[in-house]
Amino acid sequence: MRLSSRAVVDPFIVMDVMEAARAEEAAGRHVIHMEVGQPSTPAPEGARAALAAAMERDALGYTVALGLPALREGIARLYRRWYGVELDPARVVVTAGSSAAFLLAFTALFDAGERVALGAPGYPSYRQILKALSLKPVDLETRPEDRYQPRAEDIPDDIKGLIVASPANPSGTMLDRAGLAKLIEAAHAKGVAFVSDEIYHGLHYEGRAVSALEISDDVYVINSFSKYFSMTGWRIGWMVVPPDHVRTVERLAQNMFICPPHASQVAALAALDCEPELEANRAVYAENRRLMLEGLPKAGFTKIAPPDGAFYIYADVTDLTDDSLGFAAEILREAGVAVTPGLDFDPARGERTLRFSYARSTADIREGLARLQAFMATRRGDRA
Amino acid sequence: MRLSSRAVVDPFIVMDVMEAARAEEAAGRHVIHMEVGQPSTPAPEGARAALAAAMERDALGYTVALGLPALREGIARLYRRWYGVELDPARVVVTAGSSAAFLLAFTALFDAGERVALGAPGYPSYRQILKALSLKPVDLETRPEDRYQPRAEDIPDDIKGLIVASPANPSGTMLDRAGLAKLIEAAHAKGVAFVSDEIYHGLHYEGRAVSALEISDDVYVINSFSKYFSMTGWRIGWMVVPPDHVRTVERLAQNMFICPPHASQVAALAALDCEPELEANRAVYAENRRLMLEGLPKAGFTKIAPPDGAFYIYADVTDLTDDSLGFAAEILREAGVAVTPGLDFDPARGERTLRFSYARSTADIREGLARLQAFMATRRGDRA
Repeated sequence: MRLSSRAVVDPFIVMDVMEAARAEEAAGRHVIHMEVGQPSTPAPEGARAALAAAMERDALGYTVALGLPALREGIARLYRRWYGVELDPARVVVTAGSSAAFLLAFTALFDAGERVALGAPGYPSYRQILKALSLKPVDLETRPEDRYQPRAEDIPDDIKGLIVASPANPSGTMLDRAGLAKLIEAAHAKGVAFVSDEIYHGLHYEGRAVSALEISDDVYVINSFSKYFSMTGWRIGWMVVPPDHVRTVERLAQNMFICPPHASQVAALAALDCEPELEANRAVYAENRRLMLEGLPKAGFTKIAPPDGAFYIYADVTDLTDDSLGFAAEILREAGVAVTPGLDFDPARGERTLRFSYARSTADIREGLARLQAFMATRRGDRA
Repeated sequence: MRLSSRAVVDPFIVMDVMEAARAEEAAGRHVIHMEVGQPSTPAPEGARAALAAAMERDALGYTVALGLPALREGIARLYRRWYGVELDPARVVVTAGSSAAFLLAFTALFDAGERVALGAPGYPSYRQILKALSLKPVDLETRPEDRYQPRAEDIPDDIKGLIVASPANPSGTMLDRAGLAKLIEAAHAKGVAFVSDEIYHGLHYEGRAVSALEISDDVYVINSFSKYFSMTGWRIGWMVVPPDHVRTVERLAQNMFICPPHASQVAALAALDCEPELEANRAVYAENRRLMLEGLPKAGFTKIAPPDGAFYIYADVTDLTDDSLGFAAEILREAGVAVTPGLDFDPARGERTLRFSYARSTADIREGLARLQAFMATRRGDRA
């Protein structure tokens, strides 16, 4: 059997890094993981307890396609708590992670062959999911002085959709309210569908992130329990769609997914009430971030994006290398720290960037920074 | 924002039936559910216990995209146990239910605009997922004398893929080894990708179902823990692909899904060892089927498809109505039994068919049959 042309998606470079890290560990090396994009904490205790109880009393069969009504209501209440937005739960679509939300959104909004724009650097799977759905991703190169976010004037005329993430991955940068509003207005003026990826909301350290729903109802907002709620492996997320799109998205979801995982929905519903544990996790990230902002420049990584949210620091390493993949391999081998080269996020310019994650424990971050500083000092000495 | 043209999928008629049944129950009526397509039993006890234990010791973060290695190995062993087939675990792709497997398979195999054939009657979501992926479903009308399965000579020349299910939904009919081999050979001869939906395997009552993998390695086989393993809501299934497709499917899965739900993978792995409980479930279905085969003809439903497997009986009700939707509504209202009109499964001929499910308890089946017999006797009396 032949493979389709749309199946030929790019490899994930980070997978090679993770495999190399695994090989180092298998060889007895201790590796600090600054390449990972997920919390090391489990789902909150209340979430796990709720599922344990549900397994005793419920068959946990299919739910309705849009998700448990109580979960949709709980998510709507989160918009009041986080943003002061009154949201009709009928507009909330529970999904199998943000991955399923992207599949649903792109299918609902775009026909084969259409062009969809996204900022570079950005989450690599946007581009690959678009390709898999026979859509054409259009990279918008962003600039550090714009916090690595697209500008309204960069939106091409020939696109049908624009994907924006704030806080972004890999940069961790956020758009402020005015910046987000300007992008949404520009998209609307051009008849371009606006998809707001808000998966890192909740993980901010100074000002909070602004939701596209604070600005317009005519947007698709995608979020997840993966990051702030520490539930990556549970594959549970959600999407908020305009009221007149709900029925169509429901039918698509019925056919494409039947329903999100029931057990994960039960756990997610309880996770909404686990704020103290989740805020404690966030305090760890905040301390890690403080250490990174102090330690990375000391090591020599001075050109970093404004680290507004998420748990990433994106560094321009132009002064150090033009081969980020090789440099990451060198850092792993010499310093025992796994970091991600920028190539997955920005095919054009990622050979001169690295992403550092601070999602692990503070002890790991301290040790990682010490190793990076020692390695970089030696490297500078070698060159001198 | 406008919706795409591919987002406009057909409604599920069965949803209207389920809503009507729910309304009857809300009004205090007792309804027997012969419309449902899922077991009423929970995941096996061993599966739930395994997850409860894992939640205590593991963060349950992302797994690798193809699934936990132990689960892939366990599924490979199932092929030895069930079919005597030696299967390389490297070819097993764990998926978020058969739904995700179809999304992956169709994306890997077909490009936008291509035509893919499927038997009618058949599982309605095949058609809708194909449309959502900008593919063109081609219905092959099947005949009762062929056990409602497509024939090799019906395969059109202009298609790129053929989807076959054995046991099938809604008919419950199976292809024997010769019949399946003939279809696979014909597909191969025409360069048509063969996708074998084996989701009801394990639920057979006389001879066992034959897997396409017993005949060829050059097929996509899709299965799930939903039916035999009684884990619908867990959204966990798998796919077996040709060796030279694994790498491409892995990259697609990384981007489209990241990974299947980790908790569900843990439960599924343990479910593989719960044969006694699962065989006890199957004994219930076997008894239910015996009662249905005795009771439905007594009620007046005499034209039924050979009920080889799954938990469905498909009845031709041409002699009773040409409005299966109205007839199902009448049965619900008058007899208090929810059944599914054939329209979802066969848009062209489903107005003269009904699907009866016997997935619930034996007590429910007995009561449902008694109600159907009384209702039909009255109806015959009314007409006489």
